[in-house]
Amino acid sequence: MPGRDNPGGSQLSRRHLLLGGAVGLTAAGAAAAAVASRPEDHDAPTPPEALFGDDRVPFHGTHQAGVATPPPAHVAFVALDLLAQTDATALARLMRILTDDAVRLTQGRGALADTEPELATSPARLTVTFGFGPGFVERAGAAASPSWLRPLPAFGIDRLEDRWSGGDLLLQVCADDPLTVAHAVRMLLKDSRTFTSLRWSQRGFRRAHGTEPATATVRNLFGQVDGTVNPAPGTDDFERLVWSHGQVPWLEGGTSLVLRRIAMDLDRWDLVDRAGRESAVGRRLDTGAPLTGVAEHDEPDFDAKTPAGFPVIADYSHLRRARSDDPGQKILRRAYNYDDEPGTDDGVSRSGLLFAAYQADVDAQFVPIQRRLDELDLLNEWTTPIGSAVFAIPPGCQADGFVGDTLLA
Amino acid sequence: MPGRDNPGGSQLSRRHLLLGGAVGLTAAGAAAAAVASRPEDHDAPTPPEALFGDDRVPFHGTHQAGVATPPPAHVAFVALDLLAQTDATALARLMRILTDDAVRLTQGRGALADTEPELATSPARLTVTFGFGPGFVERAGAAASPSWLRPLPAFGIDRLEDRWSGGDLLLQVCADDPLTVAHAVRMLLKDSRTFTSLRWSQRGFRRAHGTEPATATVRNLFGQVDGTVNPAPGTDDFERLVWSHGQVPWLEGGTSLVLRRIAMDLDRWDLVDRAGRESAVGRRLDTGAPLTGVAEHDEPDFDAKTPAGFPVIADYSHLRRARSDDPGQKILRRAYNYDDEPGTDDGVSRSGLLFAAYQADVDAQFVPIQRRLDELDLLNEWTTPIGSAVFAIPPGCQADGFVGDTLLA
Repeated sequence: MPGRDNPGGSQLSRRHLLLGGAVGLTAAGAAAAAVASRPEDHDAPTPPEALFGDDRVPFHGTHQAGVATPPPAHVAFVALDLLAQTDATALARLMRILTDDAVRLTQGRGALADTEPELATSPARLTVTFGFGPGFVERAGAAASPSWLRPLPAFGIDRLEDRWSGGDLLLQVCADDPLTVAHAVRMLLKDSRTFTSLRWSQRGFRRAHGTEPATATVRNLFGQVDGTVNPAPGTDDFERLVWSHGQVPWLEGGTSLVLRRIAMDLDRWDLVDRAGRESAVGRRLDTGAPLTGVAEHDEPDFDAKTPAGFPVIADYSHLRRARSDDPGQKILRRAYNYDDEPGTDDGVSRSGLLFAAYQADVDAQFVPIQRRLDELDLLNEWTTPIGSAVFAIPPGCQADGFVGDTLLA
Repeated sequence: MPGRDNPGGSQLSRRHLLLGGAVGLTAAGAAAAAVASRPEDHDAPTPPEALFGDDRVPFHGTHQAGVATPPPAHVAFVALDLLAQTDATALARLMRILTDDAVRLTQGRGALADTEPELATSPARLTVTFGFGPGFVERAGAAASPSWLRPLPAFGIDRLEDRWSGGDLLLQVCADDPLTVAHAVRMLLKDSRTFTSLRWSQRGFRRAHGTEPATATVRNLFGQVDGTVNPAPGTDDFERLVWSHGQVPWLEGGTSLVLRRIAMDLDRWDLVDRAGRESAVGRRLDTGAPLTGVAEHDEPDFDAKTPAGFPVIADYSHLRRARSDDPGQKILRRAYNYDDEPGTDDGVSRSGLLFAAYQADVDAQFVPIQRRLDELDLLNEWTTPIGSAVFAIPPGCQADGFVGDTLLA
């Protein structure tokens, strides 16, 4: 009996059943099915489907979902500003409503008063994660605020635009299905609108669920393997580097998010040959291996020299500049690509990266890395930060609580 | 032996192998694998993956791919205008280059001089379909042009904006992976830029591959089941309704595309209750069944009356108005949702539908349906066409030809 020793529960069983059905077809039946599903010669074969629409990420817990969760294919980051009349009592009411929406939507049910509940039935690993900007924490009348909860220090490479920066309340909505994201964002915005106004909204994507093995490190639009060095969820490293411990009480078990919108000038990147690109990155473009190694996860050897005596991994390379000897200077990266409709008069691309970094302490972890990259990083030639925002990501909540209850209750 | 009577070829076998592997795990091994893939308690179960990145749609053939092909999850429609110096000879050169790009990219290879060939290795059912606007056909010096190849007649409901309308050359790029679409569009635009300028670009999405069974009719952002009545590829109906026969010689085996950008006012749609919505649509929102039926594909009974004597399916409903007794008045719909970043001052949504309709003859098929909807359709209360373009989709080509060779060679 297929699926008997099945660790994945009903999901996996259903897939087994679907596949079992296909294997059981007679040759004639299979041929008929193949014809029926291949209406004309241009169609790819349509094998039995492994469906993930029902896949759910639990909402309640010590931490909010959407940080340690493996990143689904689509994201919407939405920043809201609080209306003048939204006081601390209203904030608690808002967060109760939004938490209820998130609980329902992530578990495949329509929100309360959902006008299109049919669009909620396929959560596809939907997560909704809330973040508080400096304005939110101030309005809540918090006794303490993390010292890093403020705009990042100005960096020389920054060309920040207001329309991608700042914000009082962040909604981070991720799922493997773009329709699921669209519906969830809409429900959350509808329930926010008597309390807030929209500041900005940024959509991003990674490889679709099922295109490549889930273990593959994603590539950005430069073709670069991006996110090789990341603390692994469940390790002590992750626990220490990502989750907040012993800072301000209401953030215990939370984290911080730095979201940088980084424009990538693909049109000028085109002018650089492959050797030049690999030298700028410090890694091979095909495998993602450091220039001193053969596999993606090989440790780079910064002392290795070329026959002419130059470092194999150049001092100006992104890999060299991003790396610190301080084991505390690490962040959790969870980047998404963006690819806006190109302008009609300025080249063929308006693309880049939504660089989302999570860390227990922005000042101790993110800022020193960014300072090094600001001073020198050849990739800066083709990348420009155009948006920047910092949020405190409060801890998760239990079934009788709401996100932010450590601050607002 | 699994996969022995396997109609889907290597793809299906590979999936069987993947799943076979999982079934073969011992209980202890399976549990360990489950733990390894669940780094913390927020993660959904991660069953064995059924990968579709390698799925390919053949490029060459009688018809261009991307019309009868089941629609993948993501689309980019891109319209280009020809530069003044692009003459008929240059058009042939351009179409040779773009055809070569499309052949390679759809088959999982980098384009010639692809600067990021690693982004091309997962075609994920990529199709690239070319369309010619009136300006293209004129510049080609065609002896004949289909009479319908011109802007649609003006409709009373239209509020067309130039920035979503018209164009000389259309690129329609579809795939199940958004990164694949982004890369393919970029390569095609790079190779077009000495011949053309960008006029507009519109991105759209449907449910992700694998969220729901491929046979499910998609829902739009109103929650409406959309596209129930569509000719089925491979049928005589499809052959007659979609492919061009006996019009102008260079279009034999081609078709036409009408692309309408239809803004959907979700904020005002919110004010309509469920009964009102179903009355406007003529179908149930949950099942998509006509109000006189129980299942999505039931034939509507336009003569059925309520106890009070009114038609069950109202005369003003979208279903009633879109339907014709003329069996020739049908089109192939292949719509995608769009969901742009909402404005910061005008409600919570800027969303709608990229309504793509394919038909042998625009004037005989699309226009009369649209006229009826223009005269009366309650859905017009919440929908506004803001973009419109008409293209001739030339036939496919053989391996030694190029798309457009019937017009340009």
